[in-house]
Amino acid sequence: MLGKIALEEAFALPRFEEKTRWWAGLFSTDVDTHVREINDINKIRIQHADKHGVGYQILSYTAPGVQDIWDPADAHTLAVEINDYIAEQVSANPDRFGAFATLSMHDPQQAATELRRCVEKYGFKGALVNDTQRAGPDGDDMIFYDNAKWDIFWQTCTELDVPLYLHPRNPTGTIYDKLWADRKWLVGPPLSFAQGVSLHVLGMVTNGVFDRHPKLQVILGHLGEHIPFDMWRINHWFEDRKKLLGLAETCQRTIREYFADNIWITTSGHFSTTTLNFCMAEVSADRILFSIDYPFETFADACDWFDAAELNTVDRLKIGRENAKKLFRLGPYKDSSA
Amino acid sequence: MLGKIALEEAFALPRFEEKTRWWAGLFSTDVDTHVREINDINKIRIQHADKHGVGYQILSYTAPGVQDIWDPADAHTLAVEINDYIAEQVSANPDRFGAFATLSMHDPQQAATELRRCVEKYGFKGALVNDTQRAGPDGDDMIFYDNAKWDIFWQTCTELDVPLYLHPRNPTGTIYDKLWADRKWLVGPPLSFAQGVSLHVLGMVTNGVFDRHPKLQVILGHLGEHIPFDMWRINHWFEDRKKLLGLAETCQRTIREYFADNIWITTSGHFSTTTLNFCMAEVSADRILFSIDYPFETFADACDWFDAAELNTVDRLKIGRENAKKLFRLGPYKDSSA
Amino acid sequence: MLGKIALEEAFALPRFEEKTRWWAGLFSTDVDTHVREINDINKIRIQHADKHGVGYQILSYTAPGVQDIWDPADAHTLAVEINDYIAEQVSANPDRFGAFATLSMHDPQQAATELRRCVEKYGFKGALVNDTQRAGPDGDDMIFYDNAKWDIFWQTCTELDVPLYLHPRNPTGTIYDKLWADRKWLVGPPLSFAQGVSLHVLGMVTNGVFDRHPKLQVILGHLGEHIPFDMWRINHWFEDRKKLLGLAETCQRTIREYFADNIWITTSGHFSTTTLNFCMAEVSADRILFSIDYPFETFADACDWFDAAELNTVDRLKIGRENAKKLFRLGPYKDSSA
Amino acid sequence: MLGKIALEEAFALPRFEEKTRWWAGLFSTDVDTHVREINDINKIRIQHADKHGVGYQILSYTAPGVQDIWDPADAHTLAVEINDYIAEQVSANPDRFGAFATLSMHDPQQAATELRRCVEKYGFKGALVNDTQRAGPDGDDMIFYDNAKWDIFWQTCTELDVPLYLHPRNPTGTIYDKLWADRKWLVGPPLSFAQGVSLHVLGMVTNGVFDRHPKLQVILGHLGEHIPFDMWRINHWFEDRKKLLGLAETCQRTIREYFADNIWITTSGHFSTTTLNFCMAEVSADRILFSIDYPFETFADACDWFDAAELNTVDRLKIGRENAKKLFRLGPYKDSSA
Repeated sequence: MLGKIALEEAFALPRFEEKTRWWAGLFSTDVDTHVREINDINKIRIQHADKHGVGYQILSYTAPGVQDIWDPADAHTLAVEINDYIAEQVSANPDRFGAFATLSMHDPQQAATELRRCVEKYGFKGALVNDTQRAGPDGDDMIFYDNAKWDIFWQTCTELDVPLYLHPRNPTGTIYDKLWADRKWLVGPPLSFAQGVSLHVLGMVTNGVFDRHPKLQVILGHLGEHIPFDMWRINHWFEDRKKLLGLAETCQRTIREYFADNIWITTSGHFSTTTLNFCMAEVSADRILFSIDYPFETFADACDWFDAAELNTVDRLKIGRENAKKLFRLGPYKDSSA
Repeated sequence: MLGKIALEEAFALPRFEEKTRWWAGLFSTDVDTHVREINDINKIRIQHADKHGVGYQILSYTAPGVQDIWDPADAHTLAVEINDYIAEQVSANPDRFGAFATLSMHDPQQAATELRRCVEKYGFKGALVNDTQRAGPDGDDMIFYDNAKWDIFWQTCTELDVPLYLHPRNPTGTIYDKLWADRKWLVGPPLSFAQGVSLHVLGMVTNGVFDRHPKLQVILGHLGEHIPFDMWRINHWFEDRKKLLGLAETCQRTIREYFADNIWITTSGHFSTTTLNFCMAEVSADRILFSIDYPFETFADACDWFDAAELNTVDRLKIGRENAKKLFRLGPYKDSSA
Repeated sequence: MLGKIALEEAFALPRFEEKTRWWAGLFSTDVDTHVREINDINKIRIQHADKHGVGYQILSYTAPGVQDIWDPADAHTLAVEINDYIAEQVSANPDRFGAFATLSMHDPQQAATELRRCVEKYGFKGALVNDTQRAGPDGDDMIFYDNAKWDIFWQTCTELDVPLYLHPRNPTGTIYDKLWADRKWLVGPPLSFAQGVSLHVLGMVTNGVFDRHPKLQVILGHLGEHIPFDMWRINHWFEDRKKLLGLAETCQRTIREYFADNIWITTSGHFSTTTLNFCMAEVSADRILFSIDYPFETFADACDWFDAAELNTVDRLKIGRENAKKLFRLGPYKDSSA
Repeated sequence: MLGKIALEEAFALPRFEEKTRWWAGLFSTDVDTHVREINDINKIRIQHADKHGVGYQILSYTAPGVQDIWDPADAHTLAVEINDYIAEQVSANPDRFGAFATLSMHDPQQAATELRRCVEKYGFKGALVNDTQRAGPDGDDMIFYDNAKWDIFWQTCTELDVPLYLHPRNPTGTIYDKLWADRKWLVGPPLSFAQGVSLHVLGMVTNGVFDRHPKLQVILGHLGEHIPFDMWRINHWFEDRKKLLGLAETCQRTIREYFADNIWITTSGHFSTTTLNFCMAEVSADRILFSIDYPFETFADACDWFDAAELNTVDRLKIGRENAKKLFRLGPYKDSSA
């Protein structure tokens, strides 16, 4: 399919090349290619996109990014640098690229203000945040955004009418030592990513963020970070607790309704037709968006799979492009992949 | 369907009634009934079973049970008491009940020895353990069994040819404070249970437990604690890492093979036909076992669902009864539910 | 779910009560109730609808109806009578009922003209036709509409922007004698209905009806009369034949595209969540419409199933109501079922 | 996967090459290759099999074959010639090939006797019959085997403990003229094949063949000729009719039970993972057998699909090989594909 839109697509700052190279050594089987790909914006990415029928990409700073910086001032300074950098880069190919804002999440008002700047000044399509913000004197604290302190931030998202992509980051500090240190192969895509994000977003659900901000739109990668698997089970327990044990004070709709009204899932890094069909049954093709997770995944793996997947025509178009066009209000753009 | 077999079915010690009552207040909408049901063995359970076509139940001590006791001596003493108690209880109705051993998991050799005693003396069908063992001076440490220290225990399981049911327990200590305290509605069935057990069992996979004990059989409840959802994604990342980054040193088979050879999943607490059909596609009806999770779930919810679920006849029989008969080598028993 | 819309809902003419009673004896387990229900319009139907959350019903004359009458003049006269009758009946409850035109299908122009009369004069929502028209001196001929002679009719459908529901009728004449006489239990819902309609609509596809009338909308009952099952297989054979053996002369799109652009399926008489989920994967929830097939099926069977089916919220609304509202351009109506 | 077993694999008699060539022109996009492949036994087939991991193939005479010959004596003579021919051919590679008997189906006793000769003398694995037998003075009659006249034949199948593969043939005579002549693209795999075989086998179900011969095993190709799609709907109607209108006199079990006990389906010509997963839900992986439909389909299409399909390990082995080994009691054979 031509003109696909992809939205979990990472870049790095070229000035961090050495760090990027070290990081790539932790997971990549071809470090040189990875570094070249993540530092490029306007050349390799467009070649891949043209070859694989991707019309438009929304770029975001690679994880853990600013969420890894526990000094608030440093975090904010870096976020601004990243946003200014990518704004300039994507301006070279506005028909092919958009961007998500990078945000320091130490302070709700500051995050809101920077998001507003990026959307209003640069036309960014929303923000992508890497799970909790590291904080505290030694970085062992975790700031969650699923509480009333962050209402000003969520309110700004809805005022600007832009979604937030809640992306994973690796566990750190005590949590890492207690749970993940002795089972390192499970850090990242095999398990820890989904555990972090599903906790955070379901925290938003149960702590009432979506009830206080009913128009808020949150995007989850990897076909929903395991949550669609348990839609029945979550619903079953929430229903009882809501009626009798007080959950309804903060969380007045059903889990299925939050997934219908507030949550989107993308195919990033999960190129399974069986699981995709299951998610279509559990959350509707209307709430699923194609994505790659480049350069951690390849355009070829994602696009060859999606283009050949046994899908009906209507939903392939919706997932591949049409849902994203509506969500991001993309006007007509020249799709040179077509 | 008559003659169903159920295997995540909890009992408590009557002498802890007060504690049981307090605990029930945290989640139950009908505390009195819950306390009555969990303390009963031979009366209410058989009435429910007769009414709902359950022929045989394997009982286990309720979570968190002995895994919550961080003093090793206290933990072992209680485990022995529980095992002796339930052995006597089920002997009244051997055609209707079996039992899983309760084990203190502070010391691998001690756990192995108590398991052997229960299997050889009482004919127990295996053991059920509630995730990690609390340990340390203040109970904040967690003992995992996914490392070489526990080989003597796993070797005993395979020698005795009995499975281990890896059941969840609630998060405690630092993990609780960091992750769950501010999102309490997610503790238990909605999220924390699956996060704990999936980490533990995938730790066993990646740390080589099943490679060192290729005949070991582990049972997971709740349709597999989210893992079937990510079968493709786990496989995708393990394959790369195995070839290139050293995972293959401990983990030589694919994730799909461990699920084919070593892991079973039950329907306990997850009465969703859509998810069950998805699991049949991802792990095979040959590895799925009916269960209820009584008295946290009702016989009616589980059995009415399963009996009416749109399933083919072959797999309904396998999931409802035949797989369990093979796994537990159940001989002919008088099925008064029939 | 409240406000459901149903569109394969049959009525009979009260003056044929004796014949209706005889016919009901062939399949019904409660002839009296059936006769009462099919002859009623404004009382029993509304009671059922109110009880089961059906807001709006589009009524059609029961099969085989006018398609069973091989005398062209008689057929047309009866069609007009039926249309005038139901127009008056539904005018009593315009917020609850619409109607499909009944058509004699002996002559394309006459059918087109009567359809136009019903739509323009009475506001009918389209037409429902019972497969082939019996014709010939002894009723053994079958008129198919999948050829160029019927272009004037299909053109009228698209000009009026109304869909045609292609409903089954029983096999008759030679076909009956050769194939069905000795296996009578397969006549009707178990097999013959789907065989007739799938042949007819796929004949329309391969003979180019949808290529000549790209805006034409055809509705199939019973989750698509088996065709979704073979989407891959049909596509596989059509593709080869189109490229090399000439099918492309009449049929330029893929089978999946006709199902995306021209064909709708309803749940009438097929209350299976497993099959519905499969159809959602193969033809998209955007092309599926709730229906009952009353009084051959009960409101209770259809609605209890649909309301309790494990479906995501978005697609339940689309299938239950929203798709139909768009297809039939239903404005606001008072939904007393809500 | 290595060592796959395939069982809808056609050969022709080389002496009919001219007719084979003419026939191939009706559907094949490469007539020369088709003719070469269908006339070969021991060379091209083994090359394909070695390349694509097929260990064992059960060969059968190509459709419509002897079922197209309405002269009973000619039909029987040809059947015997075919059986003697293929017996000799497969004896060259007994580790790679088995055969299904070809039978004239004019006379039940004669068909039974020839089947017995083939099984007892040659070790054939069962029979493959192409739907109804053409009969009558001009070939317009159709002999069905779903009635008591054929009990002697079905009894012989169960005595010999061999299955019958009910394969399609094209419609002929009146049926062709009435239904298929004007929609020729639907003849064969797109529609007519499934319509013929589903009628025939459901005729066997409702006319009591499986009740009178409860051990009889019948194999259907193409994932079950549409029947799994309607399992719910068929069951729903049969249940009512059985209770009240007399179907239970001949048909005492449910449709799901016949599919559990008497019917197998193969993947021949239907290489869709979505449909396969649906069939696993509706009829169980225990009753599904891999097959290709060579040379009408290619080894590459069938095997590349199956080997790469997202399937769990247990069911891939069962469908690919293990179910067939049990059904045909295949002892150890040298699998040079491995």
